Amino acid sequence: MEYTSIIGYVAAFCTTASFIPQVLHILKTGQVDGISLQMYTIFTFGVACWLTYGFIIRDMPMLIANLITLILACSVLGLTLWKRMR
Amino acid sequence: MEYTSIIGYVAAFCTTASFIPQVLHILKTGQVDGISLQMYTIFTFGVACWLTYGFIIRDMPMLIANLITLILACSVLGLTLWKRMR
Repeated sequence: MEYTSIIGYVAAFCTTASFIPQVLHILKTGQVDGISLQMYTIFTFGVACWLTYGFIIRDMPMLIANLITLILACSVLGLTLWKRMR
Repeated sequence: MEYTSIIGYVAAFCTTASFIPQVLHILKTGQVDGISLQMYTIFTFGVACWLTYGFIIRDMPMLIANLITLILACSVLGLTLWKRMR
């Protein structure tokens, strides 16, 4: 594999997987005070647009990466809303 | 402009700009308890990889979007570290 592709895959892996520790952090600590709801609302919408874009241009890596990110971002958004409403 | 490109630009704008309210939220409230340092460490590294990737393939929109995201993600990371150490 070309080194440029490796950098791309590492980039995609990191920006997608990074949301896992955020979800776990909320589940473990129950703390959501520092999290911006506005950020996750805009971000989730943006990732949904990337997913749509990936679907239209039929780019499988883009589709998979953004589907996983969408699930994780929705989890952060949902958990934050749920904790704030209690 | 083709509608596919518009979706791509909206996606790039949202996933980049979404970090602005997060930075402002920390600056306003001083709250960083809910923020996962692990997430921002991995995410910042991932965005730095995207920036390198954009540089290698000479993709200007990718370069600009990731440069702005990198600055914002570094701000969240730096502010969180600073608030936790005090």
